[in-house]
Amino acid sequence: MSEKLKVSIVGASGYAGGELLRILMFHPRVELKQASSESHPGRPIHSVHANLRGLLPMKYCKYDELENADIIFAAVPHHVSMKIMPQLRTKAKKIIDLSADFRLRDPKLYELWYGVPHEAPDLLKEFVYGVVEVNRPNIIGADLVAGAGCNATATILGVYPLVKAGVPIKHILADIKAGSSEGGKKPSEASHHPERAGCVRSFMPTGHRHTAEVLQLLGSTDPHLVEMSVTAIDMVRGILATIHVTTETRLTEKDLWKLFRDAYKDSPFVRIVKDKQGIFRYPEPKILAGSNYCDVGFEVDERTGRVVIISAIDNLMKGASGNCVQAMNLMCGWPETAGLEFPGLHPV
Amino acid sequence: MSEKLKVSIVGASGYAGGELLRILMFHPRVELKQASSESHPGRPIHSVHANLRGLLPMKYCKYDELENADIIFAAVPHHVSMKIMPQLRTKAKKIIDLSADFRLRDPKLYELWYGVPHEAPDLLKEFVYGVVEVNRPNIIGADLVAGAGCNATATILGVYPLVKAGVPIKHILADIKAGSSEGGKKPSEASHHPERAGCVRSFMPTGHRHTAEVLQLLGSTDPHLVEMSVTAIDMVRGILATIHVTTETRLTEKDLWKLFRDAYKDSPFVRIVKDKQGIFRYPEPKILAGSNYCDVGFEVDERTGRVVIISAIDNLMKGASGNCVQAMNLMCGWPETAGLEFPGLHPV
Amino acid sequence: MSEKLKVSIVGASGYAGGELLRILMFHPRVELKQASSESHPGRPIHSVHANLRGLLPMKYCKYDELENADIIFAAVPHHVSMKIMPQLRTKAKKIIDLSADFRLRDPKLYELWYGVPHEAPDLLKEFVYGVVEVNRPNIIGADLVAGAGCNATATILGVYPLVKAGVPIKHILADIKAGSSEGGKKPSEASHHPERAGCVRSFMPTGHRHTAEVLQLLGSTDPHLVEMSVTAIDMVRGILATIHVTTETRLTEKDLWKLFRDAYKDSPFVRIVKDKQGIFRYPEPKILAGSNYCDVGFEVDERTGRVVIISAIDNLMKGASGNCVQAMNLMCGWPETAGLEFPGLHPV
Amino acid sequence: MSEKLKVSIVGASGYAGGELLRILMFHPRVELKQASSESHPGRPIHSVHANLRGLLPMKYCKYDELENADIIFAAVPHHVSMKIMPQLRTKAKKIIDLSADFRLRDPKLYELWYGVPHEAPDLLKEFVYGVVEVNRPNIIGADLVAGAGCNATATILGVYPLVKAGVPIKHILADIKAGSSEGGKKPSEASHHPERAGCVRSFMPTGHRHTAEVLQLLGSTDPHLVEMSVTAIDMVRGILATIHVTTETRLTEKDLWKLFRDAYKDSPFVRIVKDKQGIFRYPEPKILAGSNYCDVGFEVDERTGRVVIISAIDNLMKGASGNCVQAMNLMCGWPETAGLEFPGLHPV
Repeated sequence: MSEKLKVSIVGASGYAGGELLRILMFHPRVELKQASSESHPGRPIHSVHANLRGLLPMKYCKYDELENADIIFAAVPHHVSMKIMPQLRTKAKKIIDLSADFRLRDPKLYELWYGVPHEAPDLLKEFVYGVVEVNRPNIIGADLVAGAGCNATATILGVYPLVKAGVPIKHILADIKAGSSEGGKKPSEASHHPERAGCVRSFMPTGHRHTAEVLQLLGSTDPHLVEMSVTAIDMVRGILATIHVTTETRLTEKDLWKLFRDAYKDSPFVRIVKDKQGIFRYPEPKILAGSNYCDVGFEVDERTGRVVIISAIDNLMKGASGNCVQAMNLMCGWPETAGLEFPGLHPV
Repeated sequence: MSEKLKVSIVGASGYAGGELLRILMFHPRVELKQASSESHPGRPIHSVHANLRGLLPMKYCKYDELENADIIFAAVPHHVSMKIMPQLRTKAKKIIDLSADFRLRDPKLYELWYGVPHEAPDLLKEFVYGVVEVNRPNIIGADLVAGAGCNATATILGVYPLVKAGVPIKHILADIKAGSSEGGKKPSEASHHPERAGCVRSFMPTGHRHTAEVLQLLGSTDPHLVEMSVTAIDMVRGILATIHVTTETRLTEKDLWKLFRDAYKDSPFVRIVKDKQGIFRYPEPKILAGSNYCDVGFEVDERTGRVVIISAIDNLMKGASGNCVQAMNLMCGWPETAGLEFPGLHPV
Repeated sequence: MSEKLKVSIVGASGYAGGELLRILMFHPRVELKQASSESHPGRPIHSVHANLRGLLPMKYCKYDELENADIIFAAVPHHVSMKIMPQLRTKAKKIIDLSADFRLRDPKLYELWYGVPHEAPDLLKEFVYGVVEVNRPNIIGADLVAGAGCNATATILGVYPLVKAGVPIKHILADIKAGSSEGGKKPSEASHHPERAGCVRSFMPTGHRHTAEVLQLLGSTDPHLVEMSVTAIDMVRGILATIHVTTETRLTEKDLWKLFRDAYKDSPFVRIVKDKQGIFRYPEPKILAGSNYCDVGFEVDERTGRVVIISAIDNLMKGASGNCVQAMNLMCGWPETAGLEFPGLHPV
Repeated sequence: MSEKLKVSIVGASGYAGGELLRILMFHPRVELKQASSESHPGRPIHSVHANLRGLLPMKYCKYDELENADIIFAAVPHHVSMKIMPQLRTKAKKIIDLSADFRLRDPKLYELWYGVPHEAPDLLKEFVYGVVEVNRPNIIGADLVAGAGCNATATILGVYPLVKAGVPIKHILADIKAGSSEGGKKPSEASHHPERAGCVRSFMPTGHRHTAEVLQLLGSTDPHLVEMSVTAIDMVRGILATIHVTTETRLTEKDLWKLFRDAYKDSPFVRIVKDKQGIFRYPEPKILAGSNYCDVGFEVDERTGRVVIISAIDNLMKGASGNCVQAMNLMCGWPETAGLEFPGLHPV
């Protein structure tokens, strides 16, 4: 086996950082070098990510102590990433960014959706947008990849078969059900268990930022084309996107089977789920926890021809860390599934 | 205080029947007479509804033992209700039906949505549709009321302010998140806890039967006008309807405030929930468990003018038993809120 | 009906304070006068307790604005209550304290379990310990009552039938399963939903403070006699105490039936739950949410004679606010159940 | 790498069978040969275990179609296993049984706890009891292993350090909190989501059958020595055993540290969890879902010397399938951790 590459993680005490650690410690081509955390420097990894107790004897370093590596994952908040990126580039040739800072090509769109001017606009064109299945050729061998937003990923993988085939789309409405880990690791009144447990909470009825990534996929800036509505439910991990799509011409389920099979025939992490019987007839995030799969399915309303696409992911895996490791595999010429074999649990 | 009326419940071992018992045992104008159950005849009420232990010394009778009463609630399954209704009418002047059998005016629509010919089509025109807030004048003093479907109720109370004001509506898409009690009391593989817990399950991506009730409210049979998509989540009670409405002309939030206030100013069980801060800024079913409130709110997407209406109910209360007791109150000329004062809990 | 008494609540933005508001707003003998909150002065009640939206047009005042009243409930943290109690006594004749500060007779025990010297030791002997069922004669007509700890209440009501009958007890081990609302309204890393959801967390394997109240009931200070172990589970409201009791002489289930019936025959809020069939054969907090019941049951191990007593309450109701309203009813000579009729929900 | 051995699973549509499939499909030394199911013959694996969709193209066979293999796992119900075992032995040299039928050495004890006479008593002495950590020398190279009960495993691994060191034990009380998957795959009224969700249900206050396995470990049949009490909570996977131990002589926490370290220094799947700070200071099943770890911790009550040992497992992994694969690894001379590397998730 070829020599292992040295990989470091900036911001490894957050939830996405924790998943990167969990995956990379078992990755056959990777040697974990450093994991930084500004909140827990000097503390053992398992003091935050208790599942790794006894498995990863590493301690968190401070960002300032970060040494050169072959690959760096940046799992820091939006706005922070663009500040440190120029310096990070001096420390590693290959960088995978999990923040929102390098997802949008156009710095004006960044300012529009994120409320501040972009601080490293020249770098935007160097980053490859990281939903692997829609951008595989550009990711293979790339040096800089921007991981996608979790809600964007679920939506994009749901509609991509239509986009890829050039089906004219009039409207996309993604009604997203999301778990609490999407909100990150910082406690708040809204995340306090007595308030958050059992909730079905309109978190963002309109105007979710990840809309911009879907529009970018479609090559459009028309806000009428894509709408996203996010509701928080009592779940820790997982996203279910119910995507209501209106097309110019009517599609049958047979058409959709063909489009989905064509789009994903070479994508090991996308499964088409559409059964006639059984409990799990449609995609469901419950059985994807910890896995890198995106399960997609669809139904056409017989009366109206309305297309409903259903897309499920683990927001921390295919929606963040898993997808970024998948990207790393392609950036380095490794097997796409390396380190990402865990299939999820049943029951759970 | 006036003499109490004798009330019996047919089908009182189901979930809606249990809620009728809970409410009516404390209702100031009602004397509970009989509660029938074909599955538990001779058994005490608390053997099924354990919350009523020690409070209601009544036992279940069989349907055949049902005596005359002033009011009868029929809480039996669809298809059964229309079979027994002619006989029930000989036993009580006032009947409130919780099944789907008498909701739709047109027997052809019943056959279309429920798959069998209606067996008592002549009775359809005698029943008043029972979402109280949209039909109050007809319910006052009525003898026969058909309780509405739970998902229909949530959707109807969300869009009624626009309908009432004559706002031209192009499209309604209700994306509904529903709890497990909506599926009733019979265990199945799908309701088995290890499979059902933690689920986010596309139960009915298209074509839910309650769509027909919303169309009936709109005076339309155009299936393109109203679409309903139901997703089961890990919750026992509660419905959140995220209703995406497209109108002919653009509405502002100020317009919506006016429409909603106008529509519900005399409705004690509908609250407008739209706050600028706090955790519960939008309607949420969590705090409605056991209450008869329907909380409604809305947001207009600044970019696109898209209207999202959010509507929350307890499916067994405002979506079934509570709403039917509210109807009974009006049928009998009693205060609309009698017996329905419980406000829900926080936290819960 | 007699004139209503004016009641104020100090610390009404906490969870117990919210439940006091919910109960008292419907109490037939009470007029809510003021509700203070240091964190939300000037804000409407429903900004914190969203279930009361539209029902209670009151706003929070500051503690300094508190006027005289007939009855004051103090729902402030431990240590704070003893500081303000002398002043509170000048504002109302009858005071019900929900904190731990006036539960223990002996100031030395307070210091032992709560880690600071008692600041109002002279008041201790004036307060009556407020588990109504074990102290009813002393509460009737009393002016000062100390509400009991929630875990203590569940345990005490479980073992009281044996204590009352003078059964010699060798050992009590209460293994308590508790919901997140027991920890109060302040967010923390431990209450953050992604960490707290799904947990089964040894919160206090040994040495829980409420042990002192159980020992006080038994007239003992021997720490070997009573042990309490608390585990946090994924539940918001509710306590289940599994109480393993060792007695000097062997008891049969028939003996226990007699002891429990004798102890609780005049207690409207304690139910004996021990069925041969059905799902809810033993006490369960799920169906008690919002109710003031304590359900108790028991089983004797046929092989060993081991007695297991099972006791379930809603920690915010019988474990706090409900029990204190029940005490108020007795202090004022009102019906014991006034305002406390809500029976809990099924299913939920 | 050595040639792979052919492994078949009898009863592979149950939950433990599903986990065996998930583990063994990635096991480096194993080739999955057949998976039988009497309820789903001819159906694809993923029709039951939806997590394995696209990963395991195998279909279920009937038991009658079972061919010879190198190793057979029997994951059938109690009573069934002892009926088929003589025939199974003709089909494979190495058999690992997950039922209760071959755990107890003494057929009289089997009859006492399981209510029927043992039908293959001669086989009992040939089976090795399968909690690996307490029986490793006997399992290495063995042909027949009986997997342990899940509640027994959690309890045994909690107390084993004391047993191994010969600490005289007066009493063990294991208060166990268990998830719904422990009850298996068959729906019932008790497992119906609206009834089972949110429950804290005394499933077995006394007399749980797994007690017999703990007594067997202790070399005792005195039912006073070990008591087990099982409470069902709202969780799918996982067991937390809070084990209250009374010893003849007082132990300090330092003593316990030494005992636990000695007992488990060579056991890769047992971790001692006892931290001074952080959220996960004690063992917790939440972070063990899908992993084969048993986390153990302890606390000594300073006042009384009471020892509380806390033990957490995934009931389907270390409590069933994971432990049995671990046993297989030793039976075959493979690395103990082969196929069992998944560390669990955080957050989840």
